[in-house]
Amino acid sequence: MTKPFRRRDLLGIRDLTPEEIRGILDTAENFREINSREIKKVPALRGKTVINLFFENSTRTRTSFEIAAKRLSADAVNISVSASSVTKGETLVDTALNLDAMDPDCIVVRHSSAGVPHQLAKVSRAAIVNAGDGANEHPTQALLDAMTIREHKKKIRGQEVAIVGDILHSRVARSNVHLLTKMGAKVRVAGPGTLVPEEFKHFVDDGLTICPHVEDAIEGADVVMILRIQRERQDSAYFPTLREYAIHYGLTNERLDLAKKDAIVLHPGPMNRGIEIASEVADSSRSLILDQVKYGVAVRMAVLYLATGGNVVN
Amino acid sequence: MTKPFRRRDLLGIRDLTPEEIRGILDTAENFREINSREIKKVPALRGKTVINLFFENSTRTRTSFEIAAKRLSADAVNISVSASSVTKGETLVDTALNLDAMDPDCIVVRHSSAGVPHQLAKVSRAAIVNAGDGANEHPTQALLDAMTIREHKKKIRGQEVAIVGDILHSRVARSNVHLLTKMGAKVRVAGPGTLVPEEFKHFVDDGLTICPHVEDAIEGADVVMILRIQRERQDSAYFPTLREYAIHYGLTNERLDLAKKDAIVLHPGPMNRGIEIASEVADSSRSLILDQVKYGVAVRMAVLYLATGGNVVN
Amino acid sequence: MTKPFRRRDLLGIRDLTPEEIRGILDTAENFREINSREIKKVPALRGKTVINLFFENSTRTRTSFEIAAKRLSADAVNISVSASSVTKGETLVDTALNLDAMDPDCIVVRHSSAGVPHQLAKVSRAAIVNAGDGANEHPTQALLDAMTIREHKKKIRGQEVAIVGDILHSRVARSNVHLLTKMGAKVRVAGPGTLVPEEFKHFVDDGLTICPHVEDAIEGADVVMILRIQRERQDSAYFPTLREYAIHYGLTNERLDLAKKDAIVLHPGPMNRGIEIASEVADSSRSLILDQVKYGVAVRMAVLYLATGGNVVN
Repeated sequence: MTKPFRRRDLLGIRDLTPEEIRGILDTAENFREINSREIKKVPALRGKTVINLFFENSTRTRTSFEIAAKRLSADAVNISVSASSVTKGETLVDTALNLDAMDPDCIVVRHSSAGVPHQLAKVSRAAIVNAGDGANEHPTQALLDAMTIREHKKKIRGQEVAIVGDILHSRVARSNVHLLTKMGAKVRVAGPGTLVPEEFKHFVDDGLTICPHVEDAIEGADVVMILRIQRERQDSAYFPTLREYAIHYGLTNERLDLAKKDAIVLHPGPMNRGIEIASEVADSSRSLILDQVKYGVAVRMAVLYLATGGNVVN
Repeated sequence: MTKPFRRRDLLGIRDLTPEEIRGILDTAENFREINSREIKKVPALRGKTVINLFFENSTRTRTSFEIAAKRLSADAVNISVSASSVTKGETLVDTALNLDAMDPDCIVVRHSSAGVPHQLAKVSRAAIVNAGDGANEHPTQALLDAMTIREHKKKIRGQEVAIVGDILHSRVARSNVHLLTKMGAKVRVAGPGTLVPEEFKHFVDDGLTICPHVEDAIEGADVVMILRIQRERQDSAYFPTLREYAIHYGLTNERLDLAKKDAIVLHPGPMNRGIEIASEVADSSRSLILDQVKYGVAVRMAVLYLATGGNVVN
Repeated sequence: MTKPFRRRDLLGIRDLTPEEIRGILDTAENFREINSREIKKVPALRGKTVINLFFENSTRTRTSFEIAAKRLSADAVNISVSASSVTKGETLVDTALNLDAMDPDCIVVRHSSAGVPHQLAKVSRAAIVNAGDGANEHPTQALLDAMTIREHKKKIRGQEVAIVGDILHSRVARSNVHLLTKMGAKVRVAGPGTLVPEEFKHFVDDGLTICPHVEDAIEGADVVMILRIQRERQDSAYFPTLREYAIHYGLTNERLDLAKKDAIVLHPGPMNRGIEIASEVADSSRSLILDQVKYGVAVRMAVLYLATGGNVVN
C-alpha cells in the first residue's frame, strides 16, 4: 500500500478505513526500531514545524508527541493555552488561523470540547491531528492500543476485547470501539450505568456487545482494556464513590481470572491504582501499560509523518 | 547596503535610521521565501542560543519568535516568568546577568514595564530584542506592519495611514508612528480621549496629524490600522464601555468606506471581533491580518539574524 | 582516566569518589570552551533525548540544563509538573516509568522531597540526574562551585572554605560539604542555630569545622560561600527576621575583610541582596557569582555527556 496521505488530518478513527488504519500501524512498526537505537533520530521531518496546541493539560500525550516530532527532526513548538490569547477574547478559529499563518506543517490539538479539531481542520492549511477532544475521540490512543494488541496477539481480527469503565464519557473508549470493530475484533463494553453512546447502537451488528456486568465483558476476553476513572465526574449523580467503583468495576486478579489465560491488560494512563485497576494487576506480566506508552511514540511518529506528506511504510 | 549589525540590540524603532529599517525589511523579504519551502530551515543561526524571556504572557509573539529562531537552526529556549526567580526576590538585572552568563547570543524580552529591554541591554553581552515593553515600544510589530504595507502598496513613502484606538497606551501605535514618519508616510491618529503621547507632538511636523474623530483619520486613507482594545484598561475613567467603543471607534464597513477604495486593514491581534473591528471587515479581502502574522515570522527571522551578527541581505 | 560512565545516574556527591569528581570537572573544563565559540554546538548527544522533569519551579537550573543539552545536540524536552498527571492521582514511580517507556537517555529531576531521584533511578533505564531534591543534595551546584574554585584557586585541596547560612536545610551546603571534604578542602560552616545535620558529624575528622559565629568561619578563608536564605522557612521558630539575618549573618565588606585578601565569594543564586549578601560584596570583583553560572552550563554538559555513556575527557 502506497496511498499517499498528503497534508492529511487525523481527526478521529471514525473517518478511517481499515486499510488506512493498517497503513498507520505498519508505518509505526517501521518507526518503532528508531526508538531503540543509540542515535534516535532520522531526518524524515527536517524543516517541518509541528505545533502542539494543548488547551487541556497533558504531560504524557504532549511529551509523546514532542518526542515523536523531535526524533523525526521536526521543529516542535509547544503552546499550552489557558491564560493565553483565548482568555484575551480571541475566537478559537482566529487562534488557529493565526498559528496557521506561521506556516506550520502540522498542528496537534487537545481540547476539552468535542469537535474542536474538526473546526480547526476546516480553516487550517496545516494538517490537524486530534490529541483528544472532549468526550469524542482520541485516535492516537486507539492506534497505540491497536499496535499493542497486534504486537502481542499477532492480529486484531477475532480478538475478544473487553472495555471496562465510563464508556459514555470516554474518548478512549469511543476511538477504540471504532477501531476495533473496523478491524474485526469482538468488543464487549461494561461500566457504571447502562449508558452507552447512541452512536454505538449500530455497532451491535459489527461485533459490539453491551454487557450488564463487568464480569460478562471480561469472561473469555483476549484483551481487557480498563478506562481511567474521571475523578472530575465523581460528583455527577450516576457515578459511584471511588470505593464503590473499585468494588464493582475495579480490575482485580479475581476478575482478570475470568479472561483467557493469556489475556493482556491495557490502560490508557495515568492509572488510579486501587480504583479502576488493582496494583497487583497493574504490575503483573499481563499488564502491557508501559508497552502502550512505548508504542505511543512510534504511533505518533507515524501519524506526524503521514500527516505531513509521508507515504505509508510497510 | 552591507552595514554590519553585530550583536546589535533592537530596543525600539525610535533609535533606528530609515536606512536601518530598510535593511531589516529587505532582509525579511529575503527570508520570507524560506517559510514556504518544503524544508523550512536554513543553517544561518546554527549553534546560536536565543532565549525568549517573557514576563508577560503572549502565545502569538513568543511562538513567532520561537519559530523564527528554529527555522534559522538556532537553539531556542523559552522562559516564562511569573512564578520564577523574580518572585524569589531576585532583581531583574540579576536575572538578566545570570542568563547572560549562560552565553546566549540573543535575549528576546517582553515585560509589562516600559524600559526593561533597555535596562537589560546595559548589562547584557547578548543582543536584546524588545518583544514589547509596557506602553513603550513593540518594534517587531511595527516592522511587520511596514512589511505588509510595502508588500501590498509597493512603498511606504507617501501612504496615508490611519491609526485608530487607544494611542496613548499602545506600544504598537508608538512603534508605528516612529516607523511610519521616519519612512515618509502620513499618519493620522484618532481614538478615545484626545490624549496623545507628549513625545508625538514633535512628529506633527513630520507628517503626524491628530484627528478629533475616527472618521477624519480614516477618510482617504491607504492603510487603516486598528489597535486592539486593552480590556484590562476598561475600568479606567476615560475608557468607554465596550459597546460605546464599538459604536464610536469600531471599524465597520461604513467607516472603512471613507478610506480609499483599495485601502488595506491591519490589526496587531488578537482581535476583539465586534468591538474594535467588525467581523465583516476582519474577514474581508481588504483585511491583511493573517499576512501580518505570516510576515511576522520573516521579520523576526531577520531581526534575530541581524542582532546576532548577520549582515543585511538585499 | 578513561573510566566509562555508561548510563550512570548522578544522584548526589555523597556516592562519588574523588576520582569521579575529578573526571566530571576535567570533562567540564574541556566542554567550557564550546560555550565561547561562534557556533556553540557539538554533535556529542545527537539523537539522545534528555527530559527535564521539574516538580519545583527553577528558571535558572532548568535553563542551564536545557542549554547544556541543546549545545550537545540532544533533544531536550521540558516537563514542569504541578497541575499535571501527578495531580491526576498517578504515583511518582508510575510517572517515571511512563516517561522511561518513551526511551529517554536521561531524566533530569528536581523535586521538593529528598530521595525522589533515587526512587526514580531504581525503576528507570534512563540515567537520572538530580537537579535538587528537597534538603538533600544538589550535586551539579556543588560541581560548578568546585569548578569555580579550581579555576580561580588552581586546586581544591587545602583551600579553607567557609559556608554560611541555613546549613541544616540546604541541599547546596550538603552537596558542597561532601564534595569539598572528599577533595581535601577544609570546610567551616556557620549559620543561624547550631543545628547541623547529624550526618555531618563524622566529617569533623575529614576537615569539617562547625563554627559558633559567622566570623569564625570566615576568618582566614580562601572561599566564602553564602547560602541563599529560604524565605519560605522564615516563619519557622528558629529562623530570625530578615533584618536580624542581615545583621547577624549577612556577608558585608566588613565580614569579608576577615577572609584572606584574595578570598573569593560564591553564592548559588538567586541572591537576596541586602539580606544574606550585601550588594557591595555581590558586585565586587571578588564575587564570582556569574562565573558560577557560566561554569554551570559546562558542568551540566559534562554530566549529561557522562550520564549518557560518554567517557571522561581530560
